[in-house]
This record gives sequence, structure tokens and C-alpha cells, in this order.
Amino acid sequence: MKTVNAYAAPSATEPLVRTTIERRDVGAKDVLIEIRYAGICHSDIHTVRGEWGPVAYPLTVGHEIVGIVTEVGSEVTKHAVGDRAGVGCMVNSCRECANCLAGEEQYCLAGNTGTYAAVDRDGTVTQGGYSTHVVVDEDFVLRVPESLPFEKAAPLLCAGITTYSPLHHWKAGPGSNVAVVGLGGLGHMAVKIAHAMGAEVTVLSQTLSKQEDGRKLGAAHYYATSDEATFEKLANSFDLIINTVSAKVDIGAYLSLLTLDGTLVNVGAPPEPLPVQAFTLMNNRRSFAGSSIGGIRETQEMLDFCAEHGISPETELIAATEINDAYERVLKSDVRYRFVIDIATLA
Amino acid sequence: MKTVNAYAAPSATEPLVRTTIERRDVGAKDVLIEIRYAGICHSDIHTVRGEWGPVAYPLTVGHEIVGIVTEVGSEVTKHAVGDRAGVGCMVNSCRECANCLAGEEQYCLAGNTGTYAAVDRDGTVTQGGYSTHVVVDEDFVLRVPESLPFEKAAPLLCAGITTYSPLHHWKAGPGSNVAVVGLGGLGHMAVKIAHAMGAEVTVLSQTLSKQEDGRKLGAAHYYATSDEATFEKLANSFDLIINTVSAKVDIGAYLSLLTLDGTLVNVGAPPEPLPVQAFTLMNNRRSFAGSSIGGIRETQEMLDFCAEHGISPETELIAATEINDAYERVLKSDVRYRFVIDIATLA
Repeated sequence: MKTVNAYAAPSATEPLVRTTIERRDVGAKDVLIEIRYAGICHSDIHTVRGEWGPVAYPLTVGHEIVGIVTEVGSEVTKHAVGDRAGVGCMVNSCRECANCLAGEEQYCLAGNTGTYAAVDRDGTVTQGGYSTHVVVDEDFVLRVPESLPFEKAAPLLCAGITTYSPLHHWKAGPGSNVAVVGLGGLGHMAVKIAHAMGAEVTVLSQTLSKQEDGRKLGAAHYYATSDEATFEKLANSFDLIINTVSAKVDIGAYLSLLTLDGTLVNVGAPPEPLPVQAFTLMNNRRSFAGSSIGGIRETQEMLDFCAEHGISPETELIAATEINDAYERVLKSDVRYRFVIDIATLA
Repeated sequence: MKTVNAYAAPSATEPLVRTTIERRDVGAKDVLIEIRYAGICHSDIHTVRGEWGPVAYPLTVGHEIVGIVTEVGSEVTKHAVGDRAGVGCMVNSCRECANCLAGEEQYCLAGNTGTYAAVDRDGTVTQGGYSTHVVVDEDFVLRVPESLPFEKAAPLLCAGITTYSPLHHWKAGPGSNVAVVGLGGLGHMAVKIAHAMGAEVTVLSQTLSKQEDGRKLGAAHYYATSDEATFEKLANSFDLIINTVSAKVDIGAYLSLLTLDGTLVNVGAPPEPLPVQAFTLMNNRRSFAGSSIGGIRETQEMLDFCAEHGISPETELIAATEINDAYERVLKSDVRYRFVIDIATLA
């Protein structure tokens, strides 16, 4: 066991505080990572505040992690001391079910092991990336290409793969019209990645306030969804819509924007059910789908893709002491587009 | 103009009565068909009773039509006098939009012209197949293979193509697990076609009352959806689910039966919206889709497929005078599995 510095929530209602947590000894297949940067994801906030169900406290969150490998177990073959490493939303899975065997561990039929707030194989509760070190099975550790700016790479491990995976699965590329709903942490990565894949990208945002940003990120078009004319003008337009908004939206209005055989993919889930008219799906043979992060193989592919295309998130680097303030700003959508914690400030 | 015998609804609330209707003169691109058999689809009942919106009366319905070509226009090249012909749910479309040009006229962006109750190009209201003759543009007339039993072929033009199209589009075949929800007119064709395509077919019906039928039609498995254990047992099982039930069902329960990348396709639309939890879609990357009949090219392909595989609907042949009684039996699901009107009884 190793005691390391961390920021943790003492309860659902208190601010996060500086503390220490325990990391397990490095097992034969484990990698010890000295964390350099950790992104702040909206999920972190939902989880520490108990909004997604009860969790055990104190809890350290963070599932957008990059750092340097400082120790490897005796049987580790995929990573070496000194490597740039990344850890995303999961740190284990059953490895036996059909989905795991298909390389889609995120859909593990027994449930993947989340990077924080999940019960690990040793019975302890997993603790996330707002800390100086983490120990992870090598199969769930990614290689972070040297050409990616290290202080910007962390959000790729959640925001990046969550948007890359559906764009890749539903074949965004030259000739396809892709819309991205919401221009936040996920949305801005969806725009960059879809653009790099060669698709024509449209941003659908509540207002035009981020229009200039959207264009810089790679969007060819930008529309305000608060303007009803948007939905008339864009009817039957898109092959693929990535909905990054986790709040309840009028999903039927967005479905009506799909062209023949188009798909709307939710990458977030509001707690309320979304009412869908089957007729809207029968028209144009539309699909309403969901996608959850991505598998390990695909996450590596995404990191390599971003390195090759020179893509990285827009980030604001903060000290650990600024985490609680950053949470408030995330809740107000006052971030362009992802906070990244400089873990050196935790040392 | 030609006056022909027909059965028509005088209003939304009266029984259908024997009457006459007018058919247009055979134009240069038209085919005159002497109708031999017409199927009764649940849509006919919804439409004549005004349940899908106001319609003009008197109205003759019927969009599962087979007969013999008795006259062709001067520019007709696809059909000849004496041919077996079929007409399904549509008799025209704009022919210019992207969907029409893609051969998916059912999704015509200007709206396809329904076989009945639609405003035709000449401004008249289209009248359906419960009549002795119909005049249709040759592009919307199908060839009915000689090897199909003629008195059973009519329901293929709606129930057949409505189920064939999604099974074909979502690639039902050897190695795929297909579930069919509801064993009525559409469901029994879905079972036959999916089985002929090589898929392993499961019927999900409210009760086990038609289990023996289901097996004979080609289902390998049969479960009662009234038994909650069914949903536990079959979780994450199916690659494709064809939902033929137009009433509101717990769509989330059915979505949870889909395996990785599985799709549930509604081929009917209840008037109420269906509440969908995005989380259920994000799990296993599931899709909820819709499908509406099929294009003309695909309908021909379906007829040829059924002829090749010796598939035809299970039907009960009735006289025109029995139409009103048949409607009551359809509403009670007391038909195995499609009523077909012997149009000779209208002559």
C-alpha cells in the first residue's frame, strides 16, 4: 500500500478537500502512474454529489488521467517506466463475456469497473485521478503519443473517446453531414474529431454565443436551437447527430433533422425518459441510438488519431485548490472547454 | 373514366357497402389491372374509421392487391396484358427527391401517394383495392411470380414488404438472432421471412396461445411477454427485434433484450410517444429504429424471394359481403393470419 496526496469529497454536500488516499501495491500486471494532469468531467460532479446514486465517502473522482509510468509489475509487457500513460473511465472488466472478447469492454455484460466509486477486484472502492498516483492493470492503460501536448491530453480519455467512438462507429467521414448538439466539453471534441474525419460539421447550440469558437473548432455551420426556424430549415439534413446534452431535450425535434437512414446518438443520459414518436423513426428509417465511452483498443486508436491530426482539447489549467470553484463554473457552462488540474499542485 | 364495382365506407361510423367507383382512363404510362384478390390490413380499418385523421367519403380502401393486367398504355414497357400484377401501399411519389432517386420511394420527401385516401396527381382521392379494377402507373406495379399461390399473394404487398424491408436492411441471416414481437398479420410474415433468410427466430407474444403456429411458421423459440421472467431470461439476446405491435408497449423492456449493436425496429406507430431511457440505448450501443413498408425495387425483390423460398401468407379467403364481419374479427385478433377478399364476389 502506498499513501498518496489527493483531493476528495468528504460527503455529498461538502466541498472537496485535500487529503491522502491509499493505492494498492503494484501487482504483477499493474502499472504505477505518476499523474501529471487530470481533467474535470461533469460526471465527476454528478458522482461526488450523489446525483447518480449513493457512493462511499470520502471519494476521489477524476477519469481523465495522464501521467508517467514510474513502476511496472513483473509480468507487464505493454508499458515501460518513463512512458506517457493515460487512464480513462474504466480500470477493469470481466474479460470473459462476449462484449469484452469483442474488445468492447465498456459494454462488459458484468459491468466494467469504473475508475472511481466502483468496487474493485480486491473489494476496495476505486479512487480517481485527482491524486498524485494511480495503480492500474496494464490492459486498461493507454499510450499517450509524444506529439500530444501533455497538459491538454487528459480530456481525450473521456470527452475524446466518448465522441470519437460513435463518430467512428457510424462512419462519419467525407460526404457525411454531422451535427453536434451542445458545444461543451464533449461537443467541442465532437466537432474537432468529426471535422478531422472529413465530415461537414454543424453545431446545434442553444444560442449563437459560441458561434465564433465553433467555426474555429471546425464547424462549417452553426445554428441556435432556441430559434424554431432552425428545425424547419434543417429538416431531413443530417446523416449523424451526436447529442452531447445530458439534459432532457425535445428528442423528436432532433430526430426530424435526420436524413434517410440517419442516426441520432445520445452520449449522455438524462434521468428522465425521452418521449419518442415511432412515426418520426419510421419516416426516413431513422435510428435513435446510444453510445458509452469506447473500448480500450478504440481509445488507443482515438489517441493515435488525435496525434496524427494534431487535435487536442481546449483546456484551462488550474491548481488543485481551484477544483471547487471550477465545479461551480462547469455547472454554469462557464468553461471553454475543459478544466485540467495540474497535479504538480498536489505534490 | 370507367365505373367499377367496389366496397366503400360511406362514413367513419357506417359499415362498408357495395357501390361503384370511378377509375381514370388508362394513360400512356398506366396499367389497368383486373383485381383478383385484396388483403385486409389493420390500416384499412384505422383509415376508414378516421382514426388516423379525417378522410374523404365515400372511401374504398385496400392496399394489398393482386390481379391480371388487362390493358396497358402506349408507353408502358414493364408490364404486358395477361401478366400477374401487384399493387401495394403506394401508387406514386415525386420521383425527384434524393429518397426517390435512391429507390426508396416510400420515404419520398414530398410524401408518397397512398393507394387510398391520398390526393392523386389529377386531384382526385385515390381509391383502394376492394374493387374490381384499378389503374396504376407502371412504375408502381409489381410482377407477381407465377409460383406464388395467387389467392395468398396479396398480403405480401403490405405485410410482406413491411417485414421483409427491415429484416433485409438490418441484415437478418445465418448467425443472427431475430425476435418478432406480435404474431399477427405482419408478425407471421416476419417469422416466415426471417426464418427463410437463415436467422434464428424467436416470437415474443402476449401469451403462448399461438405457440404451435409460431413453430410451424419457422420460430425456434416462443415466449410469453406477460411472463416477466421472459425479459430476464432473454436480456442482451437479440441482434434484431421487429416490433409489429402498433399499440403502446414498454419499449424499454424490449430494448433491454438487444445485444451489442442490436436494433429494435418499429414497423407500426402507436399514436402515443414511447418513453425511452437514453441509458438503455447507451448500454450495448443499442438502436431504436423505424421502418415503413419498402421501395418498389425492394418490393419486387421480396416477391421474388418469397417465390424462391416458397413462402406465402396464411390466409382466410372471404367474400366481399364478409368484409364488415372480418373487420370485427381483425379487431379481436381473431384471424390466422390475414383475410383476403375474393374479388370475384364483387363482379
